[in-house]
Amino acid sequence: MSEEETMSGETGTVPHETVPREDGIVLGPTRYGKAEVRVVHVAKSDGEHDIRDLNVSVALSGDQADTHLTGDNTKVLTTDAQKNAVFALARRHGVASPESFALLLARHFLSTCPYIDHARIAVDEYAWDRVPDVRSRHSFMRSGRETRTALVHRDADGTTSVVSGLKDLVVLNSTGSEFHGFYKDEYTTLAETDDRILATAVDARWRHTNAPPGADRTAEDWDKAYERAHASLLAAFADTYSLSLQQTLYAMGRRLLLDEAGVCEVRLALPNRHHFAADLTPFGLDNDNRVFFAADRPYGLIEGAVARAGAPVPGRAWE
Amino acid sequence: MSEEETMSGETGTVPHETVPREDGIVLGPTRYGKAEVRVVHVAKSDGEHDIRDLNVSVALSGDQADTHLTGDNTKVLTTDAQKNAVFALARRHGVASPESFALLLARHFLSTCPYIDHARIAVDEYAWDRVPDVRSRHSFMRSGRETRTALVHRDADGTTSVVSGLKDLVVLNSTGSEFHGFYKDEYTTLAETDDRILATAVDARWRHTNAPPGADRTAEDWDKAYERAHASLLAAFADTYSLSLQQTLYAMGRRLLLDEAGVCEVRLALPNRHHFAADLTPFGLDNDNRVFFAADRPYGLIEGAVARAGAPVPGRAWE
Amino acid sequence: MSEEETMSGETGTVPHETVPREDGIVLGPTRYGKAEVRVVHVAKSDGEHDIRDLNVSVALSGDQADTHLTGDNTKVLTTDAQKNAVFALARRHGVASPESFALLLARHFLSTCPYIDHARIAVDEYAWDRVPDVRSRHSFMRSGRETRTALVHRDADGTTSVVSGLKDLVVLNSTGSEFHGFYKDEYTTLAETDDRILATAVDARWRHTNAPPGADRTAEDWDKAYERAHASLLAAFADTYSLSLQQTLYAMGRRLLLDEAGVCEVRLALPNRHHFAADLTPFGLDNDNRVFFAADRPYGLIEGAVARAGAPVPGRAWE
Amino acid sequence: MSEEETMSGETGTVPHETVPREDGIVLGPTRYGKAEVRVVHVAKSDGEHDIRDLNVSVALSGDQADTHLTGDNTKVLTTDAQKNAVFALARRHGVASPESFALLLARHFLSTCPYIDHARIAVDEYAWDRVPDVRSRHSFMRSGRETRTALVHRDADGTTSVVSGLKDLVVLNSTGSEFHGFYKDEYTTLAETDDRILATAVDARWRHTNAPPGADRTAEDWDKAYERAHASLLAAFADTYSLSLQQTLYAMGRRLLLDEAGVCEVRLALPNRHHFAADLTPFGLDNDNRVFFAADRPYGLIEGAVARAGAPVPGRAWE
Repeated sequence: MSEEETMSGETGTVPHETVPREDGIVLGPTRYGKAEVRVVHVAKSDGEHDIRDLNVSVALSGDQADTHLTGDNTKVLTTDAQKNAVFALARRHGVASPESFALLLARHFLSTCPYIDHARIAVDEYAWDRVPDVRSRHSFMRSGRETRTALVHRDADGTTSVVSGLKDLVVLNSTGSEFHGFYKDEYTTLAETDDRILATAVDARWRHTNAPPGADRTAEDWDKAYERAHASLLAAFADTYSLSLQQTLYAMGRRLLLDEAGVCEVRLALPNRHHFAADLTPFGLDNDNRVFFAADRPYGLIEGAVARAGAPVPGRAWE
Repeated sequence: MSEEETMSGETGTVPHETVPREDGIVLGPTRYGKAEVRVVHVAKSDGEHDIRDLNVSVALSGDQADTHLTGDNTKVLTTDAQKNAVFALARRHGVASPESFALLLARHFLSTCPYIDHARIAVDEYAWDRVPDVRSRHSFMRSGRETRTALVHRDADGTTSVVSGLKDLVVLNSTGSEFHGFYKDEYTTLAETDDRILATAVDARWRHTNAPPGADRTAEDWDKAYERAHASLLAAFADTYSLSLQQTLYAMGRRLLLDEAGVCEVRLALPNRHHFAADLTPFGLDNDNRVFFAADRPYGLIEGAVARAGAPVPGRAWE
Repeated sequence: MSEEETMSGETGTVPHETVPREDGIVLGPTRYGKAEVRVVHVAKSDGEHDIRDLNVSVALSGDQADTHLTGDNTKVLTTDAQKNAVFALARRHGVASPESFALLLARHFLSTCPYIDHARIAVDEYAWDRVPDVRSRHSFMRSGRETRTALVHRDADGTTSVVSGLKDLVVLNSTGSEFHGFYKDEYTTLAETDDRILATAVDARWRHTNAPPGADRTAEDWDKAYERAHASLLAAFADTYSLSLQQTLYAMGRRLLLDEAGVCEVRLALPNRHHFAADLTPFGLDNDNRVFFAADRPYGLIEGAVARAGAPVPGRAWE
Repeated sequence: MSEEETMSGETGTVPHETVPREDGIVLGPTRYGKAEVRVVHVAKSDGEHDIRDLNVSVALSGDQADTHLTGDNTKVLTTDAQKNAVFALARRHGVASPESFALLLARHFLSTCPYIDHARIAVDEYAWDRVPDVRSRHSFMRSGRETRTALVHRDADGTTSVVSGLKDLVVLNSTGSEFHGFYKDEYTTLAETDDRILATAVDARWRHTNAPPGADRTAEDWDKAYERAHASLLAAFADTYSLSLQQTLYAMGRRLLLDEAGVCEVRLALPNRHHFAADLTPFGLDNDNRVFFAADRPYGLIEGAVARAGAPVPGRAWE
């Protein structure tokens, strides 16, 4: 087994040293960059404005051993310059969708510094609606609770992956959910139920088929694809009669795959936001599933992947 | 000067001891209660569900010196019982608007324990929309960024105040805002501008005229009044050509007062969510107010009250 | 009743218009300033460094009607200049204690702009310890969970108040706490107990006697007074055998007053961080107060003031 | 390429279906469990108490396809039972260190339900000190800013990994840090400096050599090992003269490996908490690195692994 095999994973791609130094210590994978660059872009056309509001995190990797081992920064593109590039590229090219802006940035960083061979661009986008029923065409209000996400990886050879997603989409079915027939061990005391509230804060990401992503899509395409995925997830949550949150998770992933030909895998993390029916019997009252206590912690957490058969290998797409 | 004069204010109403004890220490105003009771109510009618999602905080005051001075709890209504009452009253009477539920609770606590002579009920309400375009009539998604608030005070003699409000309503004008002509001291370096982004997270509360509030309003009235106030604030923000955030604050308060005859005073806290135009000149680029850095801290904070001439004294309404 | 009486309170000091304009709307109290200026000061002496880490919020009030009513900013000292002053004064005078720095800033703002007649300076200070057992005399680690606070008000006539405090001081007694003998209403189901965990996150503020504060104290005095108050509160929490959190609150306030002659009033807010003994009887286990569930919400909240008899009127000191 | 290869990664271990169903959709890896169980354990001995305060998250995987595909819960150990087990095992065996408690839980879940073949136990521990200078032996205060962490993975065949760690250890060097000689691209404007503040919130995790971990360690051993690792990281941060945060990261990882024979790999994430020297030249003042603005966002983020040459393969240890 070589050293390289031991340290793959979340923190980077660069093949690290294979010849240990005298002290027997080796540098493993690394990455670095500017995180949470809050850039807002205003597009203006005949007095009509449009805004895009992003939180951009850049993480680069490559031939960076010198700065770690000796503090020689010759090969370090400063995180300050990375931040400047985010603003400058927003000015040069505009911001039309998180996926297309992330692809633009990834290509830029690979081209601007020879010591970088991998770029990871993560974007959160916050949604704004126009203020309704006013004269102004430049007035906006934050809308929705959810955050749209995009994650792009790109290698020096052009290999690119795109994962789109959303988080904090809070949804609730006030009925249409049962939970029973489960395994009982010595610590099982939960009552079985044929009617409960099912609520969660959806964290979903979906991987686009590599072919190559972006080559065939405009920013408008990405926006429309996001709207469709959002609608698919919501519809599957609402219209699945649920025997477990696990079943709902699978239904949501499956629905998105059936609706979107360009998506090959969906990953979901669904916290079970427990709503416990208040026990009112000490007060001579029934409850009849009308009054609930919304608990904070602990919470169930269901995570899973749903994929198209034969989906290509993900590589670093999810990292 | 009597003792009572020295300790009025935010923490309670009970007249405290006027005869100091041997050690010369006196108990001042106090209050106590159960905070952040998360209650969700589901109304059901022919398969159509409606939900109300509240965070209720109860604070009671009265003849409570014994528990403080000696640990004698004879006059203490436990905070656990207060929590139980929130759930039980939600079951008995439903939850139809935050104001009417808060009024109901205030009356209840004054009637259930003879040692309580003042009740303060604060309610946050989280908004939910129906999931669109689905068959289900029991599926909901959290909507909006803002939280609706209600604050009710009630004394043993029936004196009652109602303050409605909202917080975290995030709004932005991408133009239509100037800032210049300000006072210059030795530390003033800010450039004057005739075009900037104006953005804030509105925290607004409005006091209803005491007459007595609630007597003449149904829950549906409260909901409609909230919707109107929300629209008034948004419209004033969007349609005010702004020379300062202070001017916008006044315009918002004034608009709400002009639109709502039943409101006598508005208090607003508007953080100036600075959006700084990125300086792109080192890269040979103009900016032209297209690309902004959304800063976190520090931020300007403008606070103010706007009232109807002759508004009645507020008493403890805002506390 | 004059207009002035109707709108005293938290948002400002300026007497507002008494002659209503044509629309019958009046501007009430206002204040404005730069909030959350994060300033870190390094004192250096022979290679030995010391740091102070503050979060400073400035709120000024005065003759500010023009900017609200017409957008005329002639009398507005920009919040940007306020921020600059925080940094410049830290350089000119150093930062030696939050109270003395706040007093310095308050005097500055009243002297720099004729349209300001009241300054409110709120400071949070974050504690750092030296990294132990290292050679470096310039290496620090954040210590403690609590935040030290200072709140200074100053009027144009020199009237000044100083309130010191702390928040988020999380403490727990694993025994020595009972709770029984309380009032029972129809919703009371809580079991009485003679042994429970008592835990809270102390939020305490103490008002210094006006005489005038600061005139007779060095920064070192303020620091020492803070350490003493911190110790008094901790000792009172730990060594009070508690029959209710209310009793503990009073004991903490009283102890601080007995220990500190210069303090005339203490205000405390103590959330009851409930630790519920886990019910293990379904598994044939007792608990014996060994295993607890630390709950988030809801929580009891006990608030109260404890004062020295004959304490001077607080004016705006607590606002 | 088989299906299994496509969906390894963070969300689970169970081999998923290899025969796609009619719709061409397959279930990938999954895991589920109760997250954030807040358990506090009090050990009592002759009136002297000790507490451990944990946040435990359980994630199990195994033969769980039925509940996802059809809602058949026969093989589901409820997350409620998982929570009960955390409390019951704390009572049966006490809580002596996060690593030993996590190992205990992992073994339990694999033994209690035949449909589980992998357990992941993640523990956060919050530190408490005794309140100093008081009589009480049962009074505690939260100490430190950092959270201690432990992550255990265990398979049905007994293969086990243990990763210890800490997060939110906030440290700062007020000098002894330079940054210059970096790569310049078209967007590089950062000034080079030979004196700056270096500050970060350390997130560090270290993997113990599998042999098998836990077999040879008592809870006291784990606690002592944690204290040593904490001291190693602090000392390396403080005593490294830094030419880049990357260099400091490597020095911290290397130091821990040199000090702890039982650790084979360290992973660090170090946000660069930028402290910018305030520009006071407009006011005729120098700064001389005395007054800094502590910025929130954006921030540099340096991540990296440092390992012992020949470290064994990590498997799922870091997930």
